[in-house]
Amino acid sequence: MERIPILKMGQCLLVSIQVDMHDRLAMTLQNDLTARIAETNASGVLIDISALEIVDSFIGRMLANIAAMARVLDARTVLVGMRPAVAITLVELGLSLPGVRTALNVEKGMEIIATETMGSDGRHQA
Amino acid sequence: MERIPILKMGQCLLVSIQVDMHDRLAMTLQNDLTARIAETNASGVLIDISALEIVDSFIGRMLANIAAMARVLDARTVLVGMRPAVAITLVELGLSLPGVRTALNVEKGMEIIATETMGSDGRHQA
Repeated sequence: MERIPILKMGQCLLVSIQVDMHDRLAMTLQNDLTARIAETNASGVLIDISALEIVDSFIGRMLANIAAMARVLDARTVLVGMRPAVAITLVELGLSLPGVRTALNVEKGMEIIATETMGSDGRHQA
Repeated sequence: MERIPILKMGQCLLVSIQVDMHDRLAMTLQNDLTARIAETNASGVLIDISALEIVDSFIGRMLANIAAMARVLDARTVLVGMRPAVAITLVELGLSLPGVRTALNVEKGMEIIATETMGSDGRHQA
């Protein structure tokens, strides 16, 4: 497993994280994703973590980095499919995933991206 | 990794296969997927294999089984994201994936499902 697939759906890119992340895989994902955003002119990135049983500080930082990179490329990032147990652990660990929006599932995440893209109306919001 | 996530998008279910399949994981996927088709009344299943570098006879049989199960539940299965090298190997091995439709990417796969569902118009086609 050398890279995580990025699927294009309309104006969104979908990344489903199913494997244990390590340094090089996270770096490859960041490179691939920023390249795909630039290439496809995507307005949103959906990251599905429904397969993850644990989100530690390494993954938390990676998600925050991806969201920040996407933002400077004018794309919104929405994290979807978080398990209830992961949410509990995140708060107990004091990790609040700053700058990352969340939604219960892919459909709700796509709605958020569609609404925000429409709302921004060509003007960039902070 | 105990199960492969199944994402619902409109009338489709999306499965992205990124890990090595073994007997139990394939069985779990078949159970989960058939349950989700019945529960969500989905009209199509998209299986993304862009992460797979090898599709052997075990995976080929699993894909054909999933397509057959989905069909009797009135859902179409489309295989998307196959790498060119995988297509070459499949043909060289004599595996033709009977009963499985393919499309280059998720968007084209969703189009096929939308078109076929519209075309069937409530009547079931053989």
